[in-house]
Amino acid sequence: MSEQHGLAYRELGIDTSHEYVVFVRADCDFVRQEGITSHGRVEVKLRDKSIIATVNIVESALLACAEVGLSKSASRALGAKENDPIQIRLAAAPGSLRLLRSKIYGNRLDRNNFKDILEDIIGGRYSSTQVAALLTVLASQEPDIREAADFTAAMVDVGQQLSWDAELVADKHCVGGLPGNRTTPIVVAIAAECGLTMPKTSSRAITSPAGTADVMEVVTNVTLSAAQIRNVVNEQGGCMAWGGSFSLSPADDVLINVARPLELDSDVQLVASVLSKKIAAGATHVIIDMPVGPTAKIRSATHAQKLSRLLTEVAHGNNLNIRIVQTDGSQPVGQGIGPALEARDVLRVLRCDPLAPRDLRERALTLVGELLEFCGVVPKGQGLKHATHVLESGNAYQRFIDICIAQGEFKEPATACFQHTVYAQQDGAVAEIHNRHLTRLTYLLGAPGVKTAGVDLHCRLNDQVQVNQPLMTLHTETQAELMEGLEYLKTHAVYTIDG
Amino acid sequence: MSEQHGLAYRELGIDTSHEYVVFVRADCDFVRQEGITSHGRVEVKLRDKSIIATVNIVESALLACAEVGLSKSASRALGAKENDPIQIRLAAAPGSLRLLRSKIYGNRLDRNNFKDILEDIIGGRYSSTQVAALLTVLASQEPDIREAADFTAAMVDVGQQLSWDAELVADKHCVGGLPGNRTTPIVVAIAAECGLTMPKTSSRAITSPAGTADVMEVVTNVTLSAAQIRNVVNEQGGCMAWGGSFSLSPADDVLINVARPLELDSDVQLVASVLSKKIAAGATHVIIDMPVGPTAKIRSATHAQKLSRLLTEVAHGNNLNIRIVQTDGSQPVGQGIGPALEARDVLRVLRCDPLAPRDLRERALTLVGELLEFCGVVPKGQGLKHATHVLESGNAYQRFIDICIAQGEFKEPATACFQHTVYAQQDGAVAEIHNRHLTRLTYLLGAPGVKTAGVDLHCRLNDQVQVNQPLMTLHTETQAELMEGLEYLKTHAVYTIDG
Repeated sequence: MSEQHGLAYRELGIDTSHEYVVFVRADCDFVRQEGITSHGRVEVKLRDKSIIATVNIVESALLACAEVGLSKSASRALGAKENDPIQIRLAAAPGSLRLLRSKIYGNRLDRNNFKDILEDIIGGRYSSTQVAALLTVLASQEPDIREAADFTAAMVDVGQQLSWDAELVADKHCVGGLPGNRTTPIVVAIAAECGLTMPKTSSRAITSPAGTADVMEVVTNVTLSAAQIRNVVNEQGGCMAWGGSFSLSPADDVLINVARPLELDSDVQLVASVLSKKIAAGATHVIIDMPVGPTAKIRSATHAQKLSRLLTEVAHGNNLNIRIVQTDGSQPVGQGIGPALEARDVLRVLRCDPLAPRDLRERALTLVGELLEFCGVVPKGQGLKHATHVLESGNAYQRFIDICIAQGEFKEPATACFQHTVYAQQDGAVAEIHNRHLTRLTYLLGAPGVKTAGVDLHCRLNDQVQVNQPLMTLHTETQAELMEGLEYLKTHAVYTIDG
Repeated sequence: MSEQHGLAYRELGIDTSHEYVVFVRADCDFVRQEGITSHGRVEVKLRDKSIIATVNIVESALLACAEVGLSKSASRALGAKENDPIQIRLAAAPGSLRLLRSKIYGNRLDRNNFKDILEDIIGGRYSSTQVAALLTVLASQEPDIREAADFTAAMVDVGQQLSWDAELVADKHCVGGLPGNRTTPIVVAIAAECGLTMPKTSSRAITSPAGTADVMEVVTNVTLSAAQIRNVVNEQGGCMAWGGSFSLSPADDVLINVARPLELDSDVQLVASVLSKKIAAGATHVIIDMPVGPTAKIRSATHAQKLSRLLTEVAHGNNLNIRIVQTDGSQPVGQGIGPALEARDVLRVLRCDPLAPRDLRERALTLVGELLEFCGVVPKGQGLKHATHVLESGNAYQRFIDICIAQGEFKEPATACFQHTVYAQQDGAVAEIHNRHLTRLTYLLGAPGVKTAGVDLHCRLNDQVQVNQPLMTLHTETQAELMEGLEYLKTHAVYTIDG
C-alpha cells in the first residue's frame, strides 16, 4: 500500500526544543488518506534516517500542499536541507511502549527492558507525554534497588563511554545545588596535584545562577572534545570541562528536559542521572556532596538517609565505589553568586587570599580530604590535613592554572560595570536567605548568560546586622537590568531580618 | 517590574490540537530578559483572558520581532484577532501541580483537590506532559474506591450539568466498543416507547469505524443544543444526540486526547470518564454493556469483575444506580461496519426485517430488557419479553422515526458507489476476525468521514466456509480508496480461516 509520500522539505525555523514536530498541510493527500490528526505520531524519513514526530497541522500558506516543515531538532536529527525529499507515514507506537505500560501496571523491568525504552527515547521515538509517563511511574513507586541499578546501567548502555589507563579514576558530584557551592575546581586542583586521575565534566546552569561549566568558562575554555580531555588529563591528571559537548548520558538530557516543567524529582531518576554519568565517564571512585537543609534539595535527615542508601547500593550494583558526605544545606556558600563572582571566590581560595570565603574553603577541603582517604592516597584521618597542606603550599593553585592553560588559556574574571549595594533597613538577625528569590534575582541581573552579573552576599545566616549595614551588592552590565533587579527586590526579599 | 510586553498577534494557522503553543522570536526582548527557552511555559494574556502555553521559538521570518503567533487552540481560547495586543510573561506552575506531585508521591487526594487539578486542566494551564503524569499515576496505583468516587465527582463539578423533571432518568453505555455494536438506537427507541426518560448523548468515532453519533447522523440531525435536547426528550421521552456540542465532562476530552498516544487505559480513568458523563447528563439509572472477550477491551473475567466492582461502588458513591451486563466480546456485532451500514442494520432490527442481524437484535433486547426491569417498568424476569413485544409491535420503530423527526428529519441510509466482495481462498472454519485490521480497513475505505464507506461481514466466528464463498464486501465512494483497501488486505487478514 502507498503509505509513503514524497514531500519537499521547507525550512520553517521553529524550535520546539527536544520534541520532534512535523508540520504538514491539512489538505495534503497523506493527511486525508491516513486520517492523520494534529498531535498524531508519524514516522518521518529522509534517505536512510528516520524519526518519529508529532504532527502539527498547518492551515495557512506557511507551507504549500506538497511541502513539509520540521522543528529544528527534527531537521537536525534527519540532516534535512531545503527541498530534500521527505517521506511520512503513520507511525506504529514505539515497541518499548509495551514495556513502559507493563511497568505502569506494576511489573518490574530489567536492564534490557530499560535499554529498549531509553533507546527509543534517545532515538526520538517517544513523545514528551510518553517520557513524562516514564518519569511519573519512576516517582510514584517505591524504589526497588535492583531495578534502579538496572535502570542506571541501561542509561550507561545507551550512551558514549570514556575509558582511562589509570586503575583508579576519581570523580565528584553535588546532589541538589546550593547557590555558590563551587567546590569542584578546588577539589580537582588538589586531587590532581596529589596524583589522582580526575577527568571532571560539569554542566551549565539549568535552574541555578551558574553551573560549574559556566564558572570555569570565565577563566578558561571548557568546550573540549573527548580527545582534548584525554590530552589534558594525561598531562595534568585532571580537567574541568563542559559535559555537554559529548553524550555521556544522552537519555538523561531528555529526561531532565521533560522533568523540569513537571517539577518532578524522583530518587530513582536522580540516582540514575548522577551515577550513569560517573560510570560513563569511566570513574571508579566517586564522592558525593549532599547538602541537607531547609533550602537545599534534600531537606530532611530521613530523606538524606534513604537517598544515600539508594545511591550506595546502585553504585555498588554497578561496580562503582562511592562515598557520601552530608554537608550543611542551610544557606548559599561563598560570597559571590554568578559565574564571574564565583570564579573570583574560587581563585581567592586557591590563592589563600584573606578575602577567600571560609565556608567555601572548608567545604572544598573536607570533600577532597575525604576523597584522598577514600582513594587510598593518604591514610584514614590524614585527608583534611594533607589537602590543607597542598592548598597552602600554592601547588594546588599552580595546578589549577596549569589545567586551565592545558585547556586553552587562563584569564582573570572581569568585573561588572554597574554595582549597587543593598543595605539593611533595620537591626536584627538574619533569619533566612531565600534561595529561590536569590536565583531569580541573579537571572534578572543577567546571569548566567552575562558572566559578570550576579550578587555578592555580605551577610550569612544568624549574623547580627544593624540598620544601613551592607547586605548584598548587585552586579550588572546594564542600568536596565539593575533596575529590574531592584524592582523585583521590592516584593521579593532575599534576606529576612528578624528585629 | 516590566514582565509584560505588548506584542502584536499574527495568525500562523498552525493546529497543535488541544496543546496551547505560543510562537515567539528568539530575539524578542522578553525572551532574552526572562531567560525563556523553547518548551518553557508562559502566561499569554489578551485583554481579560489568559492561558498558559508552551513556547516554540521562531528563528526565521515567520514572525517579526514584535509579533507573536498562537496555535489554533490557543488563539480560539483567547479569541485573538490579527494585530491584537498580546502580553506574555513567565508562568508560575499551576497551583494544583503541587497536589498532583503529592499524589505521585503516594498521598490521597480528595474531591476538592481533584477539582483544582481538573479546573487547571480545562483552563489550559497544564501541559500535555503534566496531564500525562496525572494519567500515569492514576494507572500505576491500585484504585482506591473513595478516591475514584471523588475523582468522578470532581469531573462532574468542573463541567456543565443537565437536569430533568422526571424522577427517573435512564442511560446506557458500552465499555470498550466492539465494531458494529450499535444497540443504543434500538435501546433508546424501546425504552422511550415504554415511558422511560432517556436523553442519550453519544460520541463520534475516536478509534473505531463509527461512533453512535456518526451512525445516527446518517438518518437524522445529531447536533442539538441543550434546549433542543430538552424539547425532543420532553416530547418523545428520548433522544440520540451528539455529546460533543456541549461540555458535559470537558476535562475528560483533554484526558482522552493525551491518553490515546500513551495507549494507557486505567480503570479509574475509564470509570470516571463513563460515570461523570452519565451523572452530568442527569441520569439516575445507568445500564452498562460490558463485552468481555479476546478482541474486546476487557479480555478476562477477572478484569471484568474488578472493573464491575469499581464501576458499581463509584456509581453508588455518587448516588447513581447502575446495572452491569456482561456480553460476548469475541467478535464484531451485526453485519455492517461503518456509519451507513450500521444504520441500515439498526433499521432492519427496528423494522423486524428478516435480514436483520440476529446478534444485534438479541443484544439490544437483552440490554433494554434489563433496563426495563432495573427501572421498575416491568417486574423482574419480564424485561426481555416486554421489550421483544414492543419491538415486534412496530411501536419501537415508529418511536425511532418520531425521535428522528423531532431531531430535525429522518432519511434512509445511502449506499456506496463501489462495492467489492472478497471471497474465501480455502475451505475451513473462521478461527479469528481481526478487529484491529478490520478497523484500519474501514479507515482506508473512507469511514467514518465518508458515511457510506465500510465493510459488510458475511461470516461469523466458527462458521464453516468453502472456497469462493463471500467473506465480506468492501464499500467505498472512490475506486482509489477501494484499491487502498485491497492492497492493505494483501498483508493484513481480517478473517483467519483454519483449513
